[in-house]
Amino acid sequence: MNFSVIARVLGLLMMIFSFTLVPPMIVSWVYQDGTLSAFLYALLITFGIGFLVWLPVHNHRQELKTRDGFIITVLFWLVLAFSGSVPLYLAEQANLSYTDAFFESLSGWTTTGATVITGLDELPKSILWYRQQLQWLGGMGIIVLAVAVLPMLGIGGMQLFRAETPGPVKDSKLTPRITETAKALWYIYLSLTIACAAAYWFAGMTLFDAIGHSFSTVAIGGFSTHDASLGYFNSPTIEAIAMIFMLISVLNFGLHFYAWKNKSIVHYFLDSEFKFIFSIMLGGAALTVSALWLTDTYTLSNSVRNGLFQLVSIATTTGFSTVGFAEWPVFLPVLLFMMAFIGGCAGSTGGGMKVIRVLLIYKQGIREIRRLIHPNAIIPVKINKRTVNDRVLESVWGFFSVYILTYMVMMVALLATGLDHVTAFSAVGACLNNLGPGLGEVAAHYGNISDVAKWILSITMLLGRLEIFTFLVLMSPAFWRN
Amino acid sequence: MNFSVIARVLGLLMMIFSFTLVPPMIVSWVYQDGTLSAFLYALLITFGIGFLVWLPVHNHRQELKTRDGFIITVLFWLVLAFSGSVPLYLAEQANLSYTDAFFESLSGWTTTGATVITGLDELPKSILWYRQQLQWLGGMGIIVLAVAVLPMLGIGGMQLFRAETPGPVKDSKLTPRITETAKALWYIYLSLTIACAAAYWFAGMTLFDAIGHSFSTVAIGGFSTHDASLGYFNSPTIEAIAMIFMLISVLNFGLHFYAWKNKSIVHYFLDSEFKFIFSIMLGGAALTVSALWLTDTYTLSNSVRNGLFQLVSIATTTGFSTVGFAEWPVFLPVLLFMMAFIGGCAGSTGGGMKVIRVLLIYKQGIREIRRLIHPNAIIPVKINKRTVNDRVLESVWGFFSVYILTYMVMMVALLATGLDHVTAFSAVGACLNNLGPGLGEVAAHYGNISDVAKWILSITMLLGRLEIFTFLVLMSPAFWRN
Ligand SMILES: [K+]
Ligand SMILES: [K+]
Repeated sequence: MNFSVIARVLGLLMMIFSFTLVPPMIVSWVYQDGTLSAFLYALLITFGIGFLVWLPVHNHRQELKTRDGFIITVLFWLVLAFSGSVPLYLAEQANLSYTDAFFESLSGWTTTGATVITGLDELPKSILWYRQQLQWLGGMGIIVLAVAVLPMLGIGGMQLFRAETPGPVKDSKLTPRITETAKALWYIYLSLTIACAAAYWFAGMTLFDAIGHSFSTVAIGGFSTHDASLGYFNSPTIEAIAMIFMLISVLNFGLHFYAWKNKSIVHYFLDSEFKFIFSIMLGGAALTVSALWLTDTYTLSNSVRNGLFQLVSIATTTGFSTVGFAEWPVFLPVLLFMMAFIGGCAGSTGGGMKVIRVLLIYKQGIREIRRLIHPNAIIPVKINKRTVNDRVLESVWGFFSVYILTYMVMMVALLATGLDHVTAFSAVGACLNNLGPGLGEVAAHYGNISDVAKWILSITMLLGRLEIFTFLVLMSPAFWRN
Repeated sequence: MNFSVIARVLGLLMMIFSFTLVPPMIVSWVYQDGTLSAFLYALLITFGIGFLVWLPVHNHRQELKTRDGFIITVLFWLVLAFSGSVPLYLAEQANLSYTDAFFESLSGWTTTGATVITGLDELPKSILWYRQQLQWLGGMGIIVLAVAVLPMLGIGGMQLFRAETPGPVKDSKLTPRITETAKALWYIYLSLTIACAAAYWFAGMTLFDAIGHSFSTVAIGGFSTHDASLGYFNSPTIEAIAMIFMLISVLNFGLHFYAWKNKSIVHYFLDSEFKFIFSIMLGGAALTVSALWLTDTYTLSNSVRNGLFQLVSIATTTGFSTVGFAEWPVFLPVLLFMMAFIGGCAGSTGGGMKVIRVLLIYKQGIREIRRLIHPNAIIPVKINKRTVNDRVLESVWGFFSVYILTYMVMMVALLATGLDHVTAFSAVGACLNNLGPGLGEVAAHYGNISDVAKWILSITMLLGRLEIFTFLVLMSPAFWRN
């Protein structure tokens, strides 16, 4: 382990973060909302701490090893969650306890979008901007992590997306060096955000809301500047724009990178993961819309409008809402919820188990049935027409079982804090899948649950974003042994 | 496919079943409880149908193929469930609709032990006897299935227990031919039943109750002759006896077979699956007892008594109750419930996913963490000090994912019938794991839910007992091709 290099990276991270407080300060100055000093103090504190951590080790520039990668990845989110909590805690107008400030910050960074704040509409504009910006920056971090870091670490089968792997992602020649890859992804992410903001603006949002919601849309984050979320605007056009950008953002950014480089879109339709998520969304949409209509919850046109929007919002793990889907009849809330477990594509800002993993699990299930019929046949599992290595499949299985186990442990822990069954069941799912809204007591916000429950859910959000294994590895004694 | 041989086997099965109606007729005659004619008609009907199916094909004696094995296994339970429902439907005293009669019969055969009947204490003795006997016969069928049939079919990694597999089970030289194996297992099963019945009798049960409860104890069934289940007797001795026999019956009968042949018990302590279930039970017991005590639910001694009993009863998937554990504080009901997912050992009458599979999943999870730290190391997964073949691991993974998927689909289906979240969540678990009692509306019995829900749960019980894949294979077009 190379602790001084790790400290140098994290010190730098805090210093860089501190500069991201300048835009909210500008917003505060424009709107004169009285939070300028809170953000300024936060800037000084986070820059100061970062500088003090960085200074003694700023000359240590050794190469990082894979093992350091695990530590940095975990500390990356913890440092950001702490740094991000400072302005929220200092701003009196937000009126948050430290637990709440940390929860909100982590929820922003991990693009979970679970909020403890009510009365968003009355909050200073600068704080609203800041929350949206947290999600946007978090989304950027996640893409770099998902496209460049996790494949290198080999978490949960994501070595499938290593640059040397066959398939469309390989052909796109994602630059193996993290910095260059990150730069390319950054352009795509920024372009999507600008396009999304422009579309929202033309559709009638104020410029402030348009930019804010574009941040949380492309980040699959789900934070809004209004308590009523996107429902505030009551506009089919805005909902359609949100759906389009959620669906674009939930795809593997490696595919977008290829499209951007080669001015082509054919490769999307050749990609197994794309085809699978497309089928799932189609099936889910048909089921949701028809169930809403047949149960007379809405008229046919409103069943289509609300059904499609909530399906896309929940299944992509964004978590925007226009109507209270938690009150929809019988099985729909749980069904949408289960779709969030599938989540986004690998290399996207989406949460959940990731489409590619669910696809591999599904293919393995089918193979198992075929093997029972033909016990001696050799039946490969293929993605993008290439056979998937057994090692990758095993990693995916490991991921799946640990995911389910984490879910059960966290649910029991939440029940122990006294939450009811539906709330515990859904809150764990909403946080582990980085989805945001739950059912029961946490359908609208997470403000009313106990501090202990908030800390448990903070750990859950972090585990979800770290794909669990990154964290588990650090818990293993073998990791620390020389 | 060899349909005439299949028909011959199933016709024979119905004729054999019809003779098992003689003991309840004797009970009815002894107690003069007025059900004699119902059982006699049922005997004639089931024998008659069986004879008519058997007669045209009784000369077809070809060898059965593996493929026929899948069909026979599925039809085996369906034919038994139908046959078993006839007397329950005909006996007016039971007052059951056909749905209820079928549910109760299938619940008996699969040793699930979910009941739709209330007022057991007032029911004719013959019907009570008959229900207990169904579970006992079902348990016998399950052991033969688990020890001799499923390993041959290769369902969900159970090829691990094929006679040629290394490890203690191999050394026990389980006779590869089904009939001889079945005979040996039958002696062990019968001996355990007699020992259990004798112990219950000495502890103060009536002879009728002692035999009845011994049937449902060694079968891990959980049916009782009283609404209050074992709580009726309010006897720590009886509870201790039940615990001992549940714990014996939940082990792999292959181990008992070896003990019986070699007059030795050392091999138990060398068996990986035994060591794993022992640790789980110990951990679960510590957690349950301390939680009951710390929450002041009971005094220390009652926390020990009730905590241990309900833990063993639920974790072994038996489902007897002495106290209403569904009302225990916070997380305990869900925790016990989750333990039922682990279930019994392979080759036992227990339900759930089976201990060996959970152990393999756990070991694979650990291996995945070690692989992340040492990416190039070759790390085998071992059971009983022998490396487990990758093919077996893949089958286990296939089983696990299909199990979770079945759980989700059935839960959504139950929610669609209008059941609440806790009831749906627990009823699916209780039936898929062949456990019996659930939480919420189905904590005491399944009498109040809708007919549609009962049929969904009947399919769920069957899927659990068929280890899902036996059924799924029949749904596959590839199975029927050629
Ligand atoms: K989200
Ligand atoms: K049972």
